[in-house]
Amino acid sequence: MLKDEVRTNAYKNAIYQNAHLFKDKVVLDVGCGTSILSMFAVRAGAKHVIGVDMSTIIEKASEIVKINGMSDKITLLQGKMEEVVLPVEKVDIIISEWMGYFLLYESMLDTVLLARDKYLAPGGLIFPDKAHIYMAAIEDGDYKEEKIGFWNNVYGFDFTPLQRTALAEPLVDTVEMKAVVTDPGQVFSIDLYTVTAPELAFNVPFELHFNRNDFAHAFIAWFDIEFSACHKPIKFSTGPHAKYTHWKQTVFYLHEVLRVNRGEVIAGRISSKPTEKNKRDLDIKIDYQLQSDDSSRASAGSCDYRMC
Amino acid sequence: MLKDEVRTNAYKNAIYQNAHLFKDKVVLDVGCGTSILSMFAVRAGAKHVIGVDMSTIIEKASEIVKINGMSDKITLLQGKMEEVVLPVEKVDIIISEWMGYFLLYESMLDTVLLARDKYLAPGGLIFPDKAHIYMAAIEDGDYKEEKIGFWNNVYGFDFTPLQRTALAEPLVDTVEMKAVVTDPGQVFSIDLYTVTAPELAFNVPFELHFNRNDFAHAFIAWFDIEFSACHKPIKFSTGPHAKYTHWKQTVFYLHEVLRVNRGEVIAGRISSKPTEKNKRDLDIKIDYQLQSDDSSRASAGSCDYRMC
Repeated sequence: MLKDEVRTNAYKNAIYQNAHLFKDKVVLDVGCGTSILSMFAVRAGAKHVIGVDMSTIIEKASEIVKINGMSDKITLLQGKMEEVVLPVEKVDIIISEWMGYFLLYESMLDTVLLARDKYLAPGGLIFPDKAHIYMAAIEDGDYKEEKIGFWNNVYGFDFTPLQRTALAEPLVDTVEMKAVVTDPGQVFSIDLYTVTAPELAFNVPFELHFNRNDFAHAFIAWFDIEFSACHKPIKFSTGPHAKYTHWKQTVFYLHEVLRVNRGEVIAGRISSKPTEKNKRDLDIKIDYQLQSDDSSRASAGSCDYRMC
Repeated sequence: MLKDEVRTNAYKNAIYQNAHLFKDKVVLDVGCGTSILSMFAVRAGAKHVIGVDMSTIIEKASEIVKINGMSDKITLLQGKMEEVVLPVEKVDIIISEWMGYFLLYESMLDTVLLARDKYLAPGGLIFPDKAHIYMAAIEDGDYKEEKIGFWNNVYGFDFTPLQRTALAEPLVDTVEMKAVVTDPGQVFSIDLYTVTAPELAFNVPFELHFNRNDFAHAFIAWFDIEFSACHKPIKFSTGPHAKYTHWKQTVFYLHEVLRVNRGEVIAGRISSKPTEKNKRDLDIKIDYQLQSDDSSRASAGSCDYRMC
């Protein structure tokens, strides 16, 4: 994950370019992992950083903090945010890299919100503090055939039961910008200062405008991240137009192929909520209607997906 | 996994080309997954196939078997091999795709041996029945720097504690043939008719001959698989000289860089055994000595690795 330069440089710039915000502050790093963000904060002048992580990675983080001479500035705690005992009552800044695929899959955002409600001092800052989910539609005939069509004939056998499984699994993959056949549409935004955990289950409308005559095989989704408290706001995108990140994009294949014209609109609703079994898995539903003057091409559909 | 054509075609050919061996036989498919091997066996004329798998994939397998009209020929059982109750006392043939990375990592071979001892009729066949592990040394300067050198300076911090972790983790990756600087050496062989589970922990010598003047940064290992009961023996290799398989090769980085000359020999021992915590994880140790007339280049080392 450290090797994702877009991500790590965004955090580094957000922290280093805003040393005036970090100077002499107490910082909480939620899900600190190897402690890279904690060390950025110390180098930016923080008085003290508390890093919390459930994983045994905390042992390696302790070694790393020590050889970088920051043991007196960083306190590392292994455990759940709900259970660990912090050495302070309140913190001035929360930093966290909590984002999962499709922003919310296996995300730690609920833990960040818990830390915010329990520990963030009034007027305290959250890095990053804004996230936005976008959608578009793509032409993806060849790859859909390879991924989905494959199951029609597997070494001479009918494997269509696995085709249904494959269709219901959003695919995390890199989408080329040239495959995108609509303008992007923003569908959901999160303000980390105010959002509550239940609000992370959403059901929102979308409307996408086709920008060429083509076929559409799938929707894609991605997210942007903002550190808006910065002197000069810092953002990064995980969209198909932006530099590669390990989050790539998330592809939702349709059960049909749409034939679309420039200027036409596909509209509908996308919903996402934690599955009953595991709050970090997601049930996602996309309902859509292709509006077309040509009744042979107008279409409507409803697709269920599960990220687990 | 079905998408690994080298693997699946080898099983398909071994079964279809030897229909005379399968005709009217009772077959056990250990770890049957989606049931593709079971269906190959039915199409080759087996009287009945019993597929056993611990995973819930067995539910999908049942659907697949049904739509391919083989429900009366294939019995699928979900559970551990040790615990499921087979509808027969003995089987004529055991088929299984049990191989893991480095052949034995997360492998199901112990389950196949258990099935052999409990269910295989005298004179019964095992598909496949032979496996061989090979080693070579490679020049891999650029990639080693990217994978291992990276930790020397991570965004301005010393992350060498993770470098030690990275060195101890064998890397499953594709190695180009042009990177190989020694002849291959066979180090370990398994005969599935006779091997016992304890014998899968091995400690064996190796001797590799350098075939050019170069540097050596790592050892690699791979395996070949044989179906020797076939009319025309069928084999496939997962080595760097062979067509891509999902097993790729396994790379063991050295802590040093060796400067080697054509004709020189590197010899030593490689051992592999299950870890104390998990019998499907492996502790691997490689001891080596580079024999050279030039004392400035002669070297010896001992490296510990863990696949987990």
